[in-house]
Amino acid sequence: MNGAESLVHTLLNAGVDTVFANPGTSEMHFVAALDRIPGIRCVLCLHENVVTGAADAYWRMTGKPAATLLHCAPGLANGLANLHNAMRGRAGMINIVGDQATYHRPLDAVLTGDVEGWARPVSGFVRRAATAARVGADAAAAIEAARTCPGQVATLILPADTAWDDGGIPGVAALPLPPTGANSQAVETAAKILRASKQTGEPTMLLIGGAALHEAPLWVAHAITQATGAKMLGPVSPARIARGRNRVPLMRIPYPIDMALDSLKGIKNLILVGTTAPVAFFAYPGKPGYLYPEDCNVHVLARPDEDAPAALAALAQALGIQQNARPRTDDRKSNVVATGTITPEKLAQSLAALMPEDAIIIDEAISFGRGFFPYTFNAPNHDWLQLTGGAIGAGLPMATGAAIGAPERRVIALQADGSAMYTVQALWTQARENLNVTNIIFANRKYAILLHELANVGANPGPTALNMLNLSNPDLEWVKLAEGMGVAAAQATNMEQLNELLAGSLNRTGPFVIELLI
Amino acid sequence: MNGAESLVHTLLNAGVDTVFANPGTSEMHFVAALDRIPGIRCVLCLHENVVTGAADAYWRMTGKPAATLLHCAPGLANGLANLHNAMRGRAGMINIVGDQATYHRPLDAVLTGDVEGWARPVSGFVRRAATAARVGADAAAAIEAARTCPGQVATLILPADTAWDDGGIPGVAALPLPPTGANSQAVETAAKILRASKQTGEPTMLLIGGAALHEAPLWVAHAITQATGAKMLGPVSPARIARGRNRVPLMRIPYPIDMALDSLKGIKNLILVGTTAPVAFFAYPGKPGYLYPEDCNVHVLARPDEDAPAALAALAQALGIQQNARPRTDDRKSNVVATGTITPEKLAQSLAALMPEDAIIIDEAISFGRGFFPYTFNAPNHDWLQLTGGAIGAGLPMATGAAIGAPERRVIALQADGSAMYTVQALWTQARENLNVTNIIFANRKYAILLHELANVGANPGPTALNMLNLSNPDLEWVKLAEGMGVAAAQATNMEQLNELLAGSLNRTGPFVIELLI
Repeated sequence: MNGAESLVHTLLNAGVDTVFANPGTSEMHFVAALDRIPGIRCVLCLHENVVTGAADAYWRMTGKPAATLLHCAPGLANGLANLHNAMRGRAGMINIVGDQATYHRPLDAVLTGDVEGWARPVSGFVRRAATAARVGADAAAAIEAARTCPGQVATLILPADTAWDDGGIPGVAALPLPPTGANSQAVETAAKILRASKQTGEPTMLLIGGAALHEAPLWVAHAITQATGAKMLGPVSPARIARGRNRVPLMRIPYPIDMALDSLKGIKNLILVGTTAPVAFFAYPGKPGYLYPEDCNVHVLARPDEDAPAALAALAQALGIQQNARPRTDDRKSNVVATGTITPEKLAQSLAALMPEDAIIIDEAISFGRGFFPYTFNAPNHDWLQLTGGAIGAGLPMATGAAIGAPERRVIALQADGSAMYTVQALWTQARENLNVTNIIFANRKYAILLHELANVGANPGPTALNMLNLSNPDLEWVKLAEGMGVAAAQATNMEQLNELLAGSLNRTGPFVIELLI
Repeated sequence: MNGAESLVHTLLNAGVDTVFANPGTSEMHFVAALDRIPGIRCVLCLHENVVTGAADAYWRMTGKPAATLLHCAPGLANGLANLHNAMRGRAGMINIVGDQATYHRPLDAVLTGDVEGWARPVSGFVRRAATAARVGADAAAAIEAARTCPGQVATLILPADTAWDDGGIPGVAALPLPPTGANSQAVETAAKILRASKQTGEPTMLLIGGAALHEAPLWVAHAITQATGAKMLGPVSPARIARGRNRVPLMRIPYPIDMALDSLKGIKNLILVGTTAPVAFFAYPGKPGYLYPEDCNVHVLARPDEDAPAALAALAQALGIQQNARPRTDDRKSNVVATGTITPEKLAQSLAALMPEDAIIIDEAISFGRGFFPYTFNAPNHDWLQLTGGAIGAGLPMATGAAIGAPERRVIALQADGSAMYTVQALWTQARENLNVTNIIFANRKYAILLHELANVGANPGPTALNMLNLSNPDLEWVKLAEGMGVAAAQATNMEQLNELLAGSLNRTGPFVIELLI
C-alpha cells in the first residue's frame, strides 16, 4: 500500500466520503488511489475557490468534513478566499495539498511555494507528511482537527513521494469530542442579568450564533426573551440559520453601519450565545468600531467552541422557563406571488410563495439582498446560508457544495452578479453533477455596494470611479455564460417572468440560472 | 491632501500610470483620489488573478511596473497564483492592498486577514503604511523595490485611515539603478571553458535567460556558439523571448521530463546566462531532479539580477568574436497556411504565415503547445511570453496586460481550455478596453497534461481518474462564454476555418475568441 492509498483508507475509515478536487501533477498518485479504492465521491471543480467554497457549504449542511484536493501552493492560493470564509464561519474540512516530492522541494522548481505560510492564516491545523508511513496518521490527525468543535480548516500537505512510496499505514481518526458543555457560572450570571433587567427594564439582548441558530435552540432563546423581555438578534452573516413559518423569526444585525449601530442602540446588557462581540465590518470615519454602546455590559454565555444550545437550555432551566410551548405560526404562511417590477421585497414574497419545504437558500445577494429577510419569515421551512467572511465569490460554490451535501433538498442561490463572476466556474460543476440548484443572478451590472460605500466615505463619484464600479460596457450576459457551462438559463425582467422561471426551475432535475435584470 | 491622494501623486511622479484594479470598500478613498487626480489609466478586472496576471505581462512588455489595486487579504489571495508566476518570472509591480483601518484591525472584523503573511512568499517588498503622512514615502519605496533589477513584486498595504486621513506627502521614488555589470572573473572563466571545449570537443552549452533573450544579446550568444561550437538553449518557460525569421532560432528545454533530460544529455559544461541551474518541474520516481548530468560543471556567467547582455558582450569580446555579422535568415519565411485536420504543427505553420509583424504571442497552450516552437521560427518577428511559474490561469490575463502595455501590437493568446477557465473573466476586460487580442482556445475538453502525468506515474486511469481529468460532460462552449462577456467568437474544427477566423481577427479592432476543437 502506498501513501496515497493509506490516505484514501484513512478518509474512508473516518466516513469522509466526498472530495472536491482540482488536481495537478503532484496529486496523480492520490487520483490513482481514488480510482483503485471505491467509496469516495470525487467532485471536479474548474477552480480551487469553487472547491473550497463547496466544501464549506457541504460542512454546513452535513456537519461532516469533506476533503479538498489542491495542487501545490498556487492551487491552495486560488482557494484561500473561500477558506477564509470557511475559517470565519468555523467550517470543518480537510485540505489535501499535493506538493513537490520531499527531496525535490529544496531544488526550488518554479511551482514550489510556501504552502504552510499560505495555509496557516486560515487553518487550525497544518502539517506536511514526511514519509509514506506517516501519511495515514497525519491524515487521521487532520480529520480530528477538522472535526474539532465547532469545526476547523485542516491542511495536510502531501509531498508527491509520500503519496507514491510504499509503506502506507491507514490511520484511524478519533471520534469527534462533543463540544464543551454549558458553563454553569456563565449560565448563572446570564440568568442574573436577565432577571435583573426584567425588573429594571434595562434593555438586554441575546446575540445568537453558531449551533444556537438551529431550530430547537432558537425556540429556547425565543422562550427566554418572551419570559424576560430581552431582545434577540443574529450576527450579520452567520453560517446557517433555520428559518420559515414554523420557526423563530430571527433578525440579523444589518450590514450598513448606521443600521447596525441602530440595531444595538441603547442596549445595556449583551449576552453572547455561541458568537463573538459584534464589530463593524469596516471602519468609517467618525463611527465607532464596536457595534454595541460604550456603556453596554457584554457577557459570554457560550463561546463559539462551547455548546451554545446546551447553554441556552441550562439558562432556560435556571430561569424556570417551560420550553415545550412553541407558538403556532402557520397563519403567517403565504402563497401569493408578487407581480410587476422587481424589488427585493417582491422577490422575497415570490420566493416565500414558491419555494418548496426544506429548501436551502444561499445568500450572496450583497446590496440587493437586504430586503429579503423579513419577507421570507413566512416561507416554508428552510435553511439560510450566508457569506461568513466577507470574501465575495462564495455563493455559487456554496450552492454547489450544499446540493452535494443535501441532495434531497432544493438549493436556491440568491446571487449578486459582481460576486458571481469571481467563481462562475461553479456552474459547470452544477451541470456535471446534475445538481438541483436554482441560481438567481441579480444583474444590476455594477458593484452597487461600492457605490454606496463611496458615498459613505463622502466621495462624489466621477468618471474614473464610475468606470471602476460599473459592470456594464459590456454587459455580462448570464444566459450565455450559463449555457456555455452546460446550465440551462433564461432571463427575467419582471416578477411574472421570474415567478414562472422560478416555479419551473423548482420542478426540474439539475441546475438552472435565472438572470434577473434589476 | 489625504494619504490616498499622496499615493496617486507618488505613482504619477514615478511614471506609474496604469492601475489594474478590483477594488472594495477599503479602497474607496483611493478610487476617489484616482477620480480627482487625472493621469492614471484604471483597468477594471472582474477577478484579482486577472489583475495580477495583467500587471505581470504589462511589465514584460514595457519594463515599467503597473500598480494593482486589491481588497484586503482575500483580494490579495485571489491574485496570488499570478503573483507567484510574476515572482518566478521576476516581474515588477506595485500591489496596493487596501485593508482595515489601523485602529479597526485589532477588532478582527470578519474580513480581516494576514495580508503580510500571504504577500511575503511572492513579494520582494512588503510594507504596511502606518499613517497618511507615511503613505507617499512608503509608496516611493515600493516603486523602487518593484524596479529593482530584474524586477520584483512589491506589496504596499494601505489601511483605510491612512488613505482618508489628511497630511499626505507625495513621495519621490529614486530612479532605477542599472543592473550589476558583467563580472570580469565570471567572463574570463566562461571564455576559458569555451576555448578549452572548442579544443577538446567537450560538449558545452549556454543556457540563456532573462534579458539575454532579447534580440541583440541572442545574436551575441549565437555568435559565441558559432565561434566555439557550444550549444545554446533557453529555459523551459522564460518570461519573454524575441523570435521570428530575422532572429536567433532558440529552442527551450522541453517540459516532459525525458525530453528535458535528453536536451542536456552529455553536456560537460553548462554556462548560465541570466538564469538559474535547470531542475525538473516535478520529481518523478526514479528520475533525477537536476536536468544536467551529474558530472556536468555549472558555471554562472551572469545571475538573474546581473546584466546578462553585458556579460555576453564581454564574453564575445574576450573570445575575440565580431558581433556585427548576423546571418540572413529571410529565406526561412513562409506565407503558406496549413489545411485539413488540426495539429499543433499545422497551427504553428498557419500562425507563422498569418501573424503580423511584431505580434505578441501569449503561450499557455500546455500539452497542445509543444509543437509550436520549431514551426514559428520563420514567422514575422514577434515576442513569445510564457507561463513562468507553473500556476495555470496566466494566459488570458497576460494577453490583457500585454495589450494594455503595447497597444500598437497585435496579441495572440494560445490558450489551453482547462487553464483558460481559471481566469476566464479576463475576456470581459479585453472587451471593455477594446483590446486587439486574438484568443485561440484549444478545446480538447480534458486536463490532457494530467492524463500524460498519470501515465508517467505508472497509473492506468479508471473511471474516477478519467472523470477528474475530463472536461466534457458538459462540454464548455467557448463561443457562448466569450459572447457572454462581450467578446465576439467563433468555432473552428479544421485548419481552413481557423485560417479564415485568425486572418479575420487580425484585421479587426478589439478582441476575438476562436474555439479550436482539437
